[in-house]
Parts: sequence; structure tokens; C-alpha cells
Amino acid sequence: MSISDELRSAYPHSRKIYLSPDGNSQLRVPAREISLSNGRTFVDYDTSGPATDHEISWNAEEGLMPTRSTKFFGTQMKQARAGVITREMEYIATRESLNRSESTITAEFVRSEVARGRAVIPANIRHPELEPMIIGRGFRVKVNANLGNSAVTSSLDEEVHKMIWAARWGADTVMDLSTGKDIFRTREAILRNSPLPVGTVPIYEALERAGGRPENLSWELYRDVIIEQAEQGVDYFTIHAGLLRSYIPLTKRRVTGIVSRGGALMAQWCVAHNQENFLYTRFAEICEILAKYDVTISLGDGLRPGSIADANDAAQFAELKTLGELTPLAWNQDVQVMIEGPGHVPLHLIAENAELEARQCFEAPFYTLGPLTTDIAPGYDHITSAIGAAMIAWNGAAMLCYVTPKEHLGLPNREDVRQGLMAYRIAAHAADLAKGHPLAHFRDRALSEARFEFRWEDQFNLALDPETARRYHDETLPADGAKGAHFCSMCGPKFCSMNLNHGLHAERELQ
Amino acid sequence: MSISDELRSAYPHSRKIYLSPDGNSQLRVPAREISLSNGRTFVDYDTSGPATDHEISWNAEEGLMPTRSTKFFGTQMKQARAGVITREMEYIATRESLNRSESTITAEFVRSEVARGRAVIPANIRHPELEPMIIGRGFRVKVNANLGNSAVTSSLDEEVHKMIWAARWGADTVMDLSTGKDIFRTREAILRNSPLPVGTVPIYEALERAGGRPENLSWELYRDVIIEQAEQGVDYFTIHAGLLRSYIPLTKRRVTGIVSRGGALMAQWCVAHNQENFLYTRFAEICEILAKYDVTISLGDGLRPGSIADANDAAQFAELKTLGELTPLAWNQDVQVMIEGPGHVPLHLIAENAELEARQCFEAPFYTLGPLTTDIAPGYDHITSAIGAAMIAWNGAAMLCYVTPKEHLGLPNREDVRQGLMAYRIAAHAADLAKGHPLAHFRDRALSEARFEFRWEDQFNLALDPETARRYHDETLPADGAKGAHFCSMCGPKFCSMNLNHGLHAERELQ
Repeated sequence: MSISDELRSAYPHSRKIYLSPDGNSQLRVPAREISLSNGRTFVDYDTSGPATDHEISWNAEEGLMPTRSTKFFGTQMKQARAGVITREMEYIATRESLNRSESTITAEFVRSEVARGRAVIPANIRHPELEPMIIGRGFRVKVNANLGNSAVTSSLDEEVHKMIWAARWGADTVMDLSTGKDIFRTREAILRNSPLPVGTVPIYEALERAGGRPENLSWELYRDVIIEQAEQGVDYFTIHAGLLRSYIPLTKRRVTGIVSRGGALMAQWCVAHNQENFLYTRFAEICEILAKYDVTISLGDGLRPGSIADANDAAQFAELKTLGELTPLAWNQDVQVMIEGPGHVPLHLIAENAELEARQCFEAPFYTLGPLTTDIAPGYDHITSAIGAAMIAWNGAAMLCYVTPKEHLGLPNREDVRQGLMAYRIAAHAADLAKGHPLAHFRDRALSEARFEFRWEDQFNLALDPETARRYHDETLPADGAKGAHFCSMCGPKFCSMNLNHGLHAERELQ
Repeated sequence: MSISDELRSAYPHSRKIYLSPDGNSQLRVPAREISLSNGRTFVDYDTSGPATDHEISWNAEEGLMPTRSTKFFGTQMKQARAGVITREMEYIATRESLNRSESTITAEFVRSEVARGRAVIPANIRHPELEPMIIGRGFRVKVNANLGNSAVTSSLDEEVHKMIWAARWGADTVMDLSTGKDIFRTREAILRNSPLPVGTVPIYEALERAGGRPENLSWELYRDVIIEQAEQGVDYFTIHAGLLRSYIPLTKRRVTGIVSRGGALMAQWCVAHNQENFLYTRFAEICEILAKYDVTISLGDGLRPGSIADANDAAQFAELKTLGELTPLAWNQDVQVMIEGPGHVPLHLIAENAELEARQCFEAPFYTLGPLTTDIAPGYDHITSAIGAAMIAWNGAAMLCYVTPKEHLGLPNREDVRQGLMAYRIAAHAADLAKGHPLAHFRDRALSEARFEFRWEDQFNLALDPETARRYHDETLPADGAKGAHFCSMCGPKFCSMNLNHGLHAERELQ
């Protein structure tokens, strides 16, 4: 399997650099350095992994070179509680600070946040290719991209390429949601090539093994799946342990019932067997397995609302309360915990979700899917949901699961992945600005200065998507000379307000 | 000039209908009726005008048939204050209610909102082709689309077509921001073919007449322009009357100075002449002219922030205060008033804008450009700003000026206009839901029911953009049979949560 030049091309006017915290040159923390035309540089958080490092030769069949030790001293949470600053914590402190002195993100802060459960470091000991990262309200808001084939479409190669592509466009983690054939091989290929934490929903593979019949699921079958996936190196599992049997009737009058795939499967199982959800009854055993590998648990919201009409209803909040009861049980076993959230929620009901989660789940990181703020725009749900995502992240959500333009309509292709990630990087960054993240405003300022000073090349290169920014500009003014012009085609030379300004404050004149 | 089939094609499974309030069959208020496969219909607010009515034959050279009387009894505000319910007010009450009994939007409510200045009906007596609409916090949130050529690109035909295209995709008003040659003819062609209110920024034409030199602008020259444009039928003017000379030094330390084109021009004029802004000193004379035609004044925010760093600064808020002082002066002359707002504002500073505007400008309708919630995504500013637009409309803004993906990079083409409008219709609708607009939730519910019941055709037809929704679905499952399938390619048949549900609550089974 070859990795195309497109996937490996560098960002324009950028180079891969590696930062090392003082006194520890063994840690090489990746970052992207953008060269500006005024001689300055801008250093950005970089998720793209070895794909954009051309000094690394790399064959996807063999996978990435391992960079983490596989010696295990207990989960990150266990060590954090014991006062140990792990290599991952140091790495993350440097990564989140980008060597800027303004930052307050120290390794000790990372440790303390992990110790109290306000942040997680999804890092299975069997995933040595990982570039460690952190998810928590005190850190940069993160974005997850869902990948994975379905029974209807997509291939293994395509999914590995999508993962590299997603990392390039700013995904902080990926979830492999494959449900078709080759589920094991697809995951293996993704894991061995992924610098990003990889999450899965193990019930999907369990269902494949159960012949596609929910009633044939069982604890034993599920247990085998999570052990195998943990052995393989999956960094976090979505587990729908909070969907209790007694909550199912609460969904009866909903407009869209149960829209979580895992939730719908477990509800089917409970009804077929007239028994309590085995993910709930076996929760301690699940945590025991996860603790052996440091797999983070992401408590799934099987009863999340699938439409505006169902938002913040009794079913949803009953499950959230149970997720809050499960959280300290996992912590008791030193298992790191995230809480998954909705879904479809109108703007005025978003804050309540974040507040309830923080209170009932003891500020465990909130990981939300959007939420979509209206149901009426299939084909544009990356936008309906980026609005809600920005709002909920500002209110404290730590990671946002992206939504692509294909949501509700079909499996996303590579371009959809890019569109989804751009919308979500925007939402995450807008929230970082609103939360006052100490580093967030630097890039806005750098880009706006470039804009005001007509440094077009810098404006493109500092953009989230340099290629698209340049292409749009060039549609009407393709000549190289226009890159130095004091106007663009939007207003033309006489009506460019930026240009008009330069006469006003003479002392601020450009060279 | 021919109007292409694409511009005149009907929405799928929809027909144009005309509603009439009880006892007044002379009023024919346009709406769009969508036929669903379950035999029901859904009636939607319709901005598309005669273009989607195939019983109207129409030649763009001659323009639309006039439907409003040109008899003038004083501005809408004057009549409202005198207790008169105008034909426009009745029309609007029906249009905003869509004949639904749940609605509280009566003609008397329309009148009272206009009387107290909380809403405006931009309806120049010389624009008889207009389908009246209202802008105010008590009504459906509106969207404006900017059109107009610049000196660098675009033609007259193209701009008329863009106007029809913008109306088709949900623009409630358009602004003709042309600045190049043919400024008069372009505007005439747009006005004579526009069922939407048309706004302009008269200082642009004044500058053309001043030979492109801001210092050559004068009150006399400007006065002639606004009289001519008012005679032509322009429904609202952006006038930067609040930019006082003493505020200019406040912009000196800004990252992006003055980014409003009109604002930058007037600042240049003030500095060149060492005099107060003539739009401020001649405000009473301006209002006197506007009152003769019922041109609504949109008080421009010449000092709006052009970057996150400049948001909510002293310059911006000084001007807003002056806009608040001008508002009652215009009202004294029965001139309707809107207040323009930013711009670039991070999420946490948005509410303050809406609150200050409401308080200082006596709840005159707030009409904002976005705001963009980050500067770092040129090429995606329809998304960076849809986030802010949804927020500010939820906080009370009554009309949102769209931003296209080309913002900061070039003049938008037709596809950009559609993308901008989709993002803004989403933002406006998300705000309507959050504000509890009595009709807003019906469409979300209708679409979600169609989704849950696998009525794919209805899901497409109820979508904001039916064509795109269908195309995305068909990319992976093009066969006609898939339109009845109980799954899509996103999850495939076994993992469709919607499908899994149908086993759970047997009594809710589909036929």
C-alpha cells in the first residue's frame, strides 16, 4: 500500500520541527513552523504525524516506527495519583505550550488534571506509534474524526489513507467505526500507521461475531473482543454502559427513538433477554481489563437525542446520571474516563448539557457529537453542528466529534473528511478563544496582521486550509503580481478599506 | 437578458401557493407548499418571488409586474404611529404566520412593533415590485445577501441573476454594493426584477462621481445621489453617520484599522477637510429626504472590528453610542431605523454587542455582518461567521448579513452565494428555534419524522437544499430502490440505529 504524494506533501512555507523540554532532549515533540514573509515564524500545534516529515521514510505495510516504550507501570491516572510525571505528561506539556513563555501548561499541571480525572491521556501501552495528547477542559479543545467502512462501501486502503488525511487536516484522534468485513485487518492497518489515539466501539465487532443478531450478543463474546482490541493497541473504547433497561420505555414517545448504533443494539439485547445491560452489570470486569492496557473508557450516550424535538429529555438525562455513577467506579480502578454527549440540541439547551455533565460526572472530559442546532439542513450538517460544537466547547466540552456534510446521507469520502475537519477546527478554535486559552489568540493576530499589511502569501499560509484560501483568491486574480497588490477582487483598488486606512495613520505606513 | 431554467426551476415536490388573510382576497402572500409522501403537506416561508411561479411569464428587460400601490400616505412608521394597519402590515402578518393557528403574529402586532421602532418594513414607495417583509426581534430572523460588481470583475447580467439566485436560496433582502461602471444600470436592473427589498451604500456611488477621490466627496454630491437612488426605489440605505471625527484616533492602535469601506472613506474625508462627518451634521436633511420615499436608514458601523483583536474596543462602542443618539432623531422624522453591527467578535464578547445595541439604540433592529468568531480560516468564513451569527441572532439580532466562502479573498460567484446563504439560513433558523419562535420547530420535526420513517424523498424535499441532500445520498446508493431502504451507506443495513429501533416499540411499527 503506497502513500500518495498528496498525503505526504508538506504544508506550504512550513517545516516540521521537534521541540524538547529543557533538559530532556530525548523527547521530540512535533510542531509546524510557518515561515512568514516579514522574516518571522509562527509555530503551530501539529497533528499530522510522520506523514509531513520527509526525513522519515515509511512503508504503510510495516507501519510507523515505535517511539514509546512498552514498559508498563500502571495507567496514566494511577501514576498521576502517585505523583509521577510520566514521559507522556512531559510530552503533552511541551506540545500544548509550543515553547511559548506565556503558557501556564506545565507537566505538573498535566499530572494534576489527570490525577483528578479532569483530563485523559488516551494511550494504550500497546500503541507505541502514538504521539501522546490530552483531552480535558484545561487544554486546547480537541477534534475527533470518525473513519471506518460500512458493509456497503469503502476499502481497507481507503480507510488508512483517510486516517492520514484526517491527521493532516487537524484531527486529534480518530475512531475506527468499521462494521463490514475485514474489521480486524482494517483496525490493525490504522493502528500501526496512526500517530493519533484510535478509538473504537467494540460492540460493533461483537455484533459481527454474533452473526449480526443483537440477541446473540453476550458478555463472554464481548469480553473476548475488548481483550483482543486492547491487545491490538486501541486507545479508547466507547462503551454504552449507562443505558439501563428501565430507560428504554422513556424513548417510546421520541420523534427519532434511539439513534446511537451501540445504544440501539444494547436496547435490543435488553428487550430480547429481559435482562439488565451486561455492559452495566459487568462494568467492574470491563474496567479490570482496560486497566491492564490503559485503555481509556468513553462512556457512550446510547440515548442521545437524534432530533431537536428529543433534546434534553428524560431518557437522555437518566442515562447521563448513570454515566456519572459509573465514572468514580472506573476511577477506583485507575481507568481514565470520558463522557460522551449529544447529538441534536437547540442553542438554548446546550449549556444545560455541559453543566449537568460537569456536575454529575465530576468534570470528567465531555466528548460531544456536534451537537447539531437544527435538523433541517442535511448536506450541511458540518455547519449545523459546528455552531453547536463551538457553543458546547466554550461551555466546557473537551473534545468534539466532527460531523461531515454526508451525515445522515452516506459514508464520507476524503473531501467530506476535510470539510468536516475544517468546520470543527474552526469550532474548537473559536471556543479556545472564548475560553481565553493563553495561546489561542496568537494565530488570529498573526493572520489579521498579514491581512492588514497585504501579505497575501502569509495570509494563505497561516490559514487553516492554505490551499483553499489561495485557490479562492486566484480564481479572480491569478497573476503573481496580485500577491503584492493592496486590494483583491472583492472590492477592487479604490474601495479597499484596508488600503484606505494606510493614509489615515501615516506613522503606521507600510514599507 | 434571459433568465435560465435553472433560475426558474421549481423546488422539488413543491408548488407556489398564495395565502390570503380572512376577508381580504386582494392580498396574495406567497408561500411554498411541499408535498410529502404520506399525503401531508408542509408550508414554508418563501422568498423566491415570481421566479418559481410558472404562471407568471417574465422578461427581465421589462422587469416584474408591480403589485404594490404607489399612493403614499407617509412612512410605515408614521402610519403605524397613527394606528393605521397598512396593506404591507397585513401582508407581513400572513407571511410570518403561514396561516398556522399557533401563531401570535397579528397585523396589530406588526403595527405596534413598527410604531415603537422595534421592527422595520423596508419598502420604498417607488419599489412596487416588492413582496413586503419585516425585520425585527419579534419576527423570523432574516438574512441579507450582498451582491454587486467591483471594478475588477462581474457584469450586470450576472448580478441580476445572482439576485434571483440569492432569493431562491433564501435571501430576505439583497444589498447592491456595486462600485464599478454601470452602477446606475446595474441597480435599475436589480430593482425592477427584485421581489426583495434592496439596500445600497450611497457613498459608493458618490465616490464614483467624486472621481474616486474621498476628499472630493461633499454633502451636495451625496444629497444628489440619495435623491436619485430613492427615486429609483432603493428600500434601505447604509449611512455611516455615527463615525465622528473624534473617534478616528481610537482606531490608531488597532490590528486592522477601519475595515468598513464606507467608514474608511468618511474617515479619509474628515481628516482631509479637518471637519466633522457631513453624514452626521446633515442627518436631519438626510432623514427629510428618506421620509419622502420611506427609505429605511441602516446606520452603518464604520468602526466595526475587522479582527478578533479589535472586537468591542473603544472605537466600536463610541460609534455605537452615537448611533443610539441618532436613532430617535430619525424616528422624530418618522424614518425607520436599523443599526448595523460587527464584524469579527469572539464568542464570549458577542452577547455584549447585542445587549448594548438594544439598550443604547432602543431595540431598533440589529443587523449584523456575521460576526466571524475567528480570523484563521479564510476560505471558510461562511462557517466562522455562521457560528457568531447564530449566537448574535439568538441574543436578539434581527437580520444577518451573510458572508460567503470568498470573504477576504475575492468576489463571490453564484455557488459562493448559495454556500453563504445555506450557512446563514442555518444560523437564522437555529436562532429562531432558540428564541422559541412559534413556527420554527415544525420543519425540524417534519424532517426528523421523515428521517425516522425512512421517507428519503421527504427528507430531501424538506431539506434547506434538496438538491445537495439528494446528490450526497445518491453518491453511494444511486438506485431508486434505495429511496425506500431502511438504511443508508453511512452505517449499512445491520447497523442502522433508526432501523434497529423499529423492533423496540412494536406499536410504533411502520406500515
